[in-house]
Amino acid sequence: MAAATDLNSDLGESYGTWRLGDDEAMLEIVTSANVACGAHAGDPSTLRRVCHAAAERGVAIGAQVGYPDLLGFGRRFIDFDPDELRDVVLYQLGALDAFAQVAGTGVAYVKPHGALYHACVTHPDQAEAVAAAAHEYDPSLAALAAPGSPLLAMANEFGMEPVAEAFADRAYRSDGMLVPRREPGAVLTDPASVAARAVAIATERAVTAVDGTVVKIDARSICIHGDTPGAVAFARAVRTALEDAGVGIYSFTG
Amino acid sequence: MAAATDLNSDLGESYGTWRLGDDEAMLEIVTSANVACGAHAGDPSTLRRVCHAAAERGVAIGAQVGYPDLLGFGRRFIDFDPDELRDVVLYQLGALDAFAQVAGTGVAYVKPHGALYHACVTHPDQAEAVAAAAHEYDPSLAALAAPGSPLLAMANEFGMEPVAEAFADRAYRSDGMLVPRREPGAVLTDPASVAARAVAIATERAVTAVDGTVVKIDARSICIHGDTPGAVAFARAVRTALEDAGVGIYSFTG
Amino acid sequence: MAAATDLNSDLGESYGTWRLGDDEAMLEIVTSANVACGAHAGDPSTLRRVCHAAAERGVAIGAQVGYPDLLGFGRRFIDFDPDELRDVVLYQLGALDAFAQVAGTGVAYVKPHGALYHACVTHPDQAEAVAAAAHEYDPSLAALAAPGSPLLAMANEFGMEPVAEAFADRAYRSDGMLVPRREPGAVLTDPASVAARAVAIATERAVTAVDGTVVKIDARSICIHGDTPGAVAFARAVRTALEDAGVGIYSFTG
Amino acid sequence: MAAATDLNSDLGESYGTWRLGDDEAMLEIVTSANVACGAHAGDPSTLRRVCHAAAERGVAIGAQVGYPDLLGFGRRFIDFDPDELRDVVLYQLGALDAFAQVAGTGVAYVKPHGALYHACVTHPDQAEAVAAAAHEYDPSLAALAAPGSPLLAMANEFGMEPVAEAFADRAYRSDGMLVPRREPGAVLTDPASVAARAVAIATERAVTAVDGTVVKIDARSICIHGDTPGAVAFARAVRTALEDAGVGIYSFTG
Repeated sequence: MAAATDLNSDLGESYGTWRLGDDEAMLEIVTSANVACGAHAGDPSTLRRVCHAAAERGVAIGAQVGYPDLLGFGRRFIDFDPDELRDVVLYQLGALDAFAQVAGTGVAYVKPHGALYHACVTHPDQAEAVAAAAHEYDPSLAALAAPGSPLLAMANEFGMEPVAEAFADRAYRSDGMLVPRREPGAVLTDPASVAARAVAIATERAVTAVDGTVVKIDARSICIHGDTPGAVAFARAVRTALEDAGVGIYSFTG
Repeated sequence: MAAATDLNSDLGESYGTWRLGDDEAMLEIVTSANVACGAHAGDPSTLRRVCHAAAERGVAIGAQVGYPDLLGFGRRFIDFDPDELRDVVLYQLGALDAFAQVAGTGVAYVKPHGALYHACVTHPDQAEAVAAAAHEYDPSLAALAAPGSPLLAMANEFGMEPVAEAFADRAYRSDGMLVPRREPGAVLTDPASVAARAVAIATERAVTAVDGTVVKIDARSICIHGDTPGAVAFARAVRTALEDAGVGIYSFTG
Repeated sequence: MAAATDLNSDLGESYGTWRLGDDEAMLEIVTSANVACGAHAGDPSTLRRVCHAAAERGVAIGAQVGYPDLLGFGRRFIDFDPDELRDVVLYQLGALDAFAQVAGTGVAYVKPHGALYHACVTHPDQAEAVAAAAHEYDPSLAALAAPGSPLLAMANEFGMEPVAEAFADRAYRSDGMLVPRREPGAVLTDPASVAARAVAIATERAVTAVDGTVVKIDARSICIHGDTPGAVAFARAVRTALEDAGVGIYSFTG
Repeated sequence: MAAATDLNSDLGESYGTWRLGDDEAMLEIVTSANVACGAHAGDPSTLRRVCHAAAERGVAIGAQVGYPDLLGFGRRFIDFDPDELRDVVLYQLGALDAFAQVAGTGVAYVKPHGALYHACVTHPDQAEAVAAAAHEYDPSLAALAAPGSPLLAMANEFGMEPVAEAFADRAYRSDGMLVPRREPGAVLTDPASVAARAVAIATERAVTAVDGTVVKIDARSICIHGDTPGAVAFARAVRTALEDAGVGIYSFTG
């Protein structure tokens, strides 16, 4: 069987007059769009635009759910009561799905954003809240998260499809965890290295860690960023490298 | 054919620690619950509670959509671009519907709140935005508004069911319009008078205006308020008077 | 020297149409008003009303600064960057002070609210952020917090006046810490016991802990709550008991 | 007496992760900074940065007060109760002033933003609310607005200094009003024309209207925009043209 991967990116993160990223350009590159849902970013008209553009291109729409914190862009941990978090996530799922449905499709998966992404690793009760909201809304939703995230285990328990993702532009430790951003070398900035890493993830399900060991990363999706200067060109280079290596690029939701 | 009416009330208007009204008590009285959707009021956990309680009692759930203005409780006109208003309404519809669906039912109608209710009379482009959002989300939704509101005409054009409502506790002018709140006698406070007015609306489709003339009010629903002191007892008295008069009390969505 | 104490209470916690507590009644009882500043509660018109009423009665105004989280009422820990937290606190200080100044007085102290109150104990960098904002705004401000809170030590280092407070309606452990709310008996509900405890705090600087030992509590202020049913009567009973015991009741800012 | 003018620009309009404009660059060009106050834009850390940078350069700080509407960036009219608007403006004034004071200076004037700027022309009760808030906070504040704006008359009545501004990049009608943005030719895009217009305003207190007539514009300040692509270069060209024409460029607050 030929190697294949999904490419996902965070989109729809503008808010009113403030623009972030180039959603249309990224939708030409990725197969799964993690669309912000209005809590940490994403005003209603942005949601409409991104859902419409994604549907037109056959890009899968995921609910990029986050803490309700526009000022902090969802990047600060909030010590949420799990039941209230479940409700806040369900609210976002329904709101985004309205735009996905009006665009002729629907939300296909859930991926937590920012601090909630990390809290799903460190706070299993928050992971369970996210999984519970997704499951009660639509048990056919998939859950996209880091390999080993309790969110994937919870999703699996609920009968939902767990999908692990890797980062082509991040350094890995030998235990398969990311090198924290604050450490030197945590983020790869050379396009050729990043592209090569993406190909290795897709074809060998492995990356070379910072200590030189080869680490298995069983990831069906690769996350690429769209909100930094040069991000679009970078993402395009990754996709081209994957195509040149004969990797099939399909949404995991297919 | 025996007289019948629907009773509707604004519910779900708490926000976090701040409580407003007694949702559970009102749900024993009304047949249609206009549930706030988070824009002018209504946090996600309140939406869950109210939708669950409404579904349990067979009370129809309507989306009480409003301007996004917690500070002003949706009571201040906002000069919205119609396209952006449509998107803000669609966002609210989807969010509330998630809770209605999880409770085993779904949103059955839309009713604008506060200043948006009035803007749907004075600004037909805003009425059209509300109707368009409701229609694109679910053409089987009904629209609940004041008799003669352009929103009802728009809903009708879109093929949706328009439903007019009357107020049992408000004085009417001879042209069928409400006496503005700032004028003396605008609000009826005597329970017996209000109950009698409700019966007249349900059985004769008419009210006696302030100048003594009898005005036809073709309203299939009567709005009762639940957020003032004594509101629940008042509402119960209205319902009892209707029952005693042999009026059937059913949701218009039935 | 005769015994004396300050009485403080959280006020100004309404938001728009949502009312919480009876600010006017509590201002007849307390000597220091912790006024919410708009982040977790407190709309601008409420700030004006409370500052005006406090100034009229000679009640000191403190800035009850909190996390910017209306939905959570500032009761959820947010993992704030200390520099950003300092700025969020400074913003609130300036905003409230405008109303205090217009009322003819000014903000006299700072007291963190809810989760920020607790974070000032568990996260010294957040305590330092609060103290730094208060100090740079006005070094003559006092800081009001739990005995032993790092916030008081920070305030002291900055040359500000640290003021410890006790709770007359809470059970204490033998180490001087509060019994957590979730444990049985954590909150005293008998007015006579609470009043007696307030007198003991004011006259003996001590409370009897749950294990019967007597614990020194060096608190110059006693916090009483105003936002629960019956709170005003309860608070009045505490004040009367203090007066009957000959305790002077003065603001610590005097 | 040699010709002179003030140059003002809207700054501090970022919000959290979302950046807008190049505040530092514009502060090298203008003499008065209209700093957003957190209602329509401007997070606390942005306020600190801009106030500090303005103070360092001796640029006057004005409170760019707006409707509390992040989603609409303050560009939508909100039908505010005048008393509540006054309080919302006072809140913003105090908050911004805290940062200005900490930077070693203070707020020197008030200028309404977006829809509130226009409402101060069309709704005199809103203009009065803005002037009243500014006056009660600090009667030495100036008010910056369009020539003929009721806000300037109100400010004058309150004993505050009214300052009229002109737009170098906008077309004028023969009655001295701006050509509405939606009409063709409303915005001048040729740097040379804009620079020439700025010089004419500063030296002759006049502009040539779209019908060729010369219109007197008694404006002591010229507004230049900093939030569009190329805005900084454009603004610098205007300043250079003024300097080349021998126009003194000083803050009106001087």
